[in-house]
Amino acid sequence: MMQVETDDTIHKLKQSLLAARGEIPPNLVLKGGSLINVFTREIYETDVAISDGIIIGVGRYDGPVTLDVRGKFICPGFIDGHFHIESSMLTPPELAKAVLPHGTTAIVADPHEIANVLGPPGIRFMLDESLHLPVDFFFMLPSCVPATHLETSGAVLTARDLMTFSSDPRVLGLAEMMNYPGVVAGMEPVLEKIAAFANKIRDGHAPLLSGRDLNAYIGSGIGSDHECTEEEEAREKLRLGMHVMIREGTQAKNLKTLIPIVSDATVQHCSLVTDDLHPHDLLSRGHLNHLIDRAQEEGLDPILAVMMVTINTARYFGLKNIGAVAPGYQADVLILSSLNPVSVETVFKRGVRIFDRKEWTCDMPFRHGAEGIGPMNPAPYRPDSFSIRREGENVRVIGLIPDQILTDARIIGAPVQDGLVVADPERDIAKIAVLERYRATGNIGLGLVQGFGIREGSIASSVSHDSHNIICVGCSDEDMYLAVKTVEAMRGGIAVVRKGRVEASLALPVAGLMSGRSLEETAHGWHMVDRAAKVLGCRQREPLMELSFLALPVIPSLKITDRGLVDVLQFTHVPLFVS
Amino acid sequence: MMQVETDDTIHKLKQSLLAARGEIPPNLVLKGGSLINVFTREIYETDVAISDGIIIGVGRYDGPVTLDVRGKFICPGFIDGHFHIESSMLTPPELAKAVLPHGTTAIVADPHEIANVLGPPGIRFMLDESLHLPVDFFFMLPSCVPATHLETSGAVLTARDLMTFSSDPRVLGLAEMMNYPGVVAGMEPVLEKIAAFANKIRDGHAPLLSGRDLNAYIGSGIGSDHECTEEEEAREKLRLGMHVMIREGTQAKNLKTLIPIVSDATVQHCSLVTDDLHPHDLLSRGHLNHLIDRAQEEGLDPILAVMMVTINTARYFGLKNIGAVAPGYQADVLILSSLNPVSVETVFKRGVRIFDRKEWTCDMPFRHGAEGIGPMNPAPYRPDSFSIRREGENVRVIGLIPDQILTDARIIGAPVQDGLVVADPERDIAKIAVLERYRATGNIGLGLVQGFGIREGSIASSVSHDSHNIICVGCSDEDMYLAVKTVEAMRGGIAVVRKGRVEASLALPVAGLMSGRSLEETAHGWHMVDRAAKVLGCRQREPLMELSFLALPVIPSLKITDRGLVDVLQFTHVPLFVS
Repeated sequence: MMQVETDDTIHKLKQSLLAARGEIPPNLVLKGGSLINVFTREIYETDVAISDGIIIGVGRYDGPVTLDVRGKFICPGFIDGHFHIESSMLTPPELAKAVLPHGTTAIVADPHEIANVLGPPGIRFMLDESLHLPVDFFFMLPSCVPATHLETSGAVLTARDLMTFSSDPRVLGLAEMMNYPGVVAGMEPVLEKIAAFANKIRDGHAPLLSGRDLNAYIGSGIGSDHECTEEEEAREKLRLGMHVMIREGTQAKNLKTLIPIVSDATVQHCSLVTDDLHPHDLLSRGHLNHLIDRAQEEGLDPILAVMMVTINTARYFGLKNIGAVAPGYQADVLILSSLNPVSVETVFKRGVRIFDRKEWTCDMPFRHGAEGIGPMNPAPYRPDSFSIRREGENVRVIGLIPDQILTDARIIGAPVQDGLVVADPERDIAKIAVLERYRATGNIGLGLVQGFGIREGSIASSVSHDSHNIICVGCSDEDMYLAVKTVEAMRGGIAVVRKGRVEASLALPVAGLMSGRSLEETAHGWHMVDRAAKVLGCRQREPLMELSFLALPVIPSLKITDRGLVDVLQFTHVPLFVS
Repeated sequence: MMQVETDDTIHKLKQSLLAARGEIPPNLVLKGGSLINVFTREIYETDVAISDGIIIGVGRYDGPVTLDVRGKFICPGFIDGHFHIESSMLTPPELAKAVLPHGTTAIVADPHEIANVLGPPGIRFMLDESLHLPVDFFFMLPSCVPATHLETSGAVLTARDLMTFSSDPRVLGLAEMMNYPGVVAGMEPVLEKIAAFANKIRDGHAPLLSGRDLNAYIGSGIGSDHECTEEEEAREKLRLGMHVMIREGTQAKNLKTLIPIVSDATVQHCSLVTDDLHPHDLLSRGHLNHLIDRAQEEGLDPILAVMMVTINTARYFGLKNIGAVAPGYQADVLILSSLNPVSVETVFKRGVRIFDRKEWTCDMPFRHGAEGIGPMNPAPYRPDSFSIRREGENVRVIGLIPDQILTDARIIGAPVQDGLVVADPERDIAKIAVLERYRATGNIGLGLVQGFGIREGSIASSVSHDSHNIICVGCSDEDMYLAVKTVEAMRGGIAVVRKGRVEASLALPVAGLMSGRSLEETAHGWHMVDRAAKVLGCRQREPLMELSFLALPVIPSLKITDRGLVDVLQFTHVPLFVS
């Protein structure tokens, strides 16, 4: 409900009117920059006046405090329309610190991973930790927790659970509805979630969905998709009214394929988003600045690229006061010394110069060192908990496909030693285990994976989509035990073990997903465990990321959860041994 | 507050999903039409499936009920983003009936005129009368009632009055903020209204406002403008983030001048609107169809023109389910046999074929013959109430400028007879009077007007912007008395009197503004009074319209209200006699 505004609001409005008219001096005037105008798609020279965190004038302005930005670009702050904070392994304050220097001033986050671990308190944690930061964090509520009934997650989120957050002004709607088969089939608990957010934004996630099923999915109220991998797919989605988020993250890189869909006619319905961005990518490439650069490399007009990380994203989400440099907008303004490639020289957040020429220029309330949170409660286990007794000749084995999260389902003769199924490095076969970590059920899914490259030792991680139990790959039960034990002792993280010794570890005590430390420390830790994993024989680009997706039973073909192997296409558990 | 949806909602969603997937037949399939896609700006052949009033599929569809639309266009229903219902002199049901055959399926109305007459009950009347019609009526709440302190209106609307309507889902925000000087000067009651609707849409009205003042106006939260008359003016407003409504109505015609601002880059921020449309225009040209035709005559791509009366307007107002033909949208669909000029063959409203080949094909709940409402309560008056005693040599006279609502302020020697100031047809000088009609104050403003053309008799009208007291122009006190008496007896309307006889009259008993009758009857009545006025000597194109603006004291230079002559530039009353 609206109410007649307080005297204070009116007073502030009056002050900004006076400043806009030049009757009192603005706090700051940016003089003579080349404004990137995302409404008219022009670049032209102008001044920008700012007072009380708001852009109050664009035109000819003067004042006692000016910044000469002649020869530079004045650009709205960047907005990421779909990002999983957890993928950065940083808590919101550390993430804010990591992305601000690259021009990001707002993020629409889907706290899907922490919600799988902690449920509503996980969402609450993200909301609380991201308050009062120099990056605005908005949230879409995870729509699919747990991802399937074939695993044990830390929580189950119903429509009613989600709605407890719906009145928060930073909650914009329902996050990526991955269960598109459930939507299209009319499953009630799924439709309930969609219906509950009828007045808000409902994001989609529907890879390759097309034709009538796509019509059904969109007709249910889903407004966007960030899973397009083919040009024709994206064109069909645009035609049916979807906002297409072109994704370019650490894992999925769709920009090159999809840029051809962006034209003067369609651009308003397109955004650039990252989805997932790992700490080493954040450190080496930055954030949305890199996406604008990539789009330009593919031949896109830079103004259209900027629109896709500013006004288009803001308008899709109904965010009225960010995404442009115009009167009444929040003064989230970047000064770019170059547009191709993007070079961010200065960042203003709500009118405050927060970052300038590679230095922080303002004490912003970054909080450090979040305490460990979240359950780390597996049932007791021992080295022989990882043993697999031989119960047949042939076994199902997860066949890795390099650099993909899709897997093959293979059947091979079981490698056996002393009546136990064991790793067979000669055939690039390792053991794999998933331990339930929330409620001490004692669930351990055991199996084999081929093509992971590991020739000795073990790697364990509490990052294992989407339920984030402890996943472990290895060649010996003892090393697997030690790797899991190390992860448990850290209250979450990644550990690499070789010959009974912990070679490297990265602690992720915040829900088993985030470090609570700075980007630099986190990226360094990631680098160490990545390198140690490669010493064990892994040749793929991102062994730890591949490991983290082996427990995701919505991506074909064969996966493993704490409750055993999953035939994804049949959407059911299957035994290790083929009868 | 949202709540978990009822079983009924879920059931409906399920049914539409099944129909979208082709598992149950849709209610209707439009086969093989050329879809005007307002998202991708393409036209291509496709089917459109409709069930339960919703578009459920666009692609290949079949069903037991089909309509062959090959060779024709499938187009979203048209939306007028700024319209004063009262200008049509029709009540909402009659207006709906008048515009539907021309393809209009939604109107965003500003009940500014009736609000001046009746206050909140006038707004309530419009809301109630426009419910459950085959045109969706949305409302913006009048921001400037009364227009000035220099007149007596039927009501005064404060921020608090307006807010009593703000929870109505058809109330979208605050209507055209005409008091731009008040905004820019920071007048508190004005800012209160703007602040009260901070979460809704706030329309602007700021002719020729520019530079710092325009920045201030926009920064206060105003999102649109429909008063641009110059190309550069419109470009400046676009650059500063305004949604520019290009107006082409009965009175103001800005389309030709402003079409050059519409490009592939800017079109999303532009709409076409009518503002005012008189019954004879509605009858002869239709509604938004005419605007699309005009835009094409000026060289605009027809798809861009269609966008400006569909998706662009819907998106500006945050209306998510109208403005496009795509899954999930309300099935407001037009079949056009031609796009240039627009020829509407069939109109579907919420999936119902309501109009087809010039005939109504469905009983829609049009209500007829609204009862007279609204005050008609002038104090007693006699013929000599219109007499002006001579009190000096020279008088101020309102100088008409042909076909404009601007006037000159002239000073002339008073025409006198028997000690009274009288009309002087030789110099084209007539008497003019405005009688307060709400509270029997007995206020009568008396003066002279030059250039109106009237040589004998009198014309009186209860349509006199914005306070809508009874305005009367004439050459004899007796005829003026009779004309006003006739208007009073009709409880509002227009009367033309000559030599003691009523030559023609149009009853407007609904608030003194609307006829309560059909378009045809209303336009006929208008035609009769217009013709009769011309018999009295009026040579201008629209004498009745010119008369109705002579009491509007916000348009320079000299105007008249029930409280006397107004020097608009001084914003104060001035005496008739020049001392």
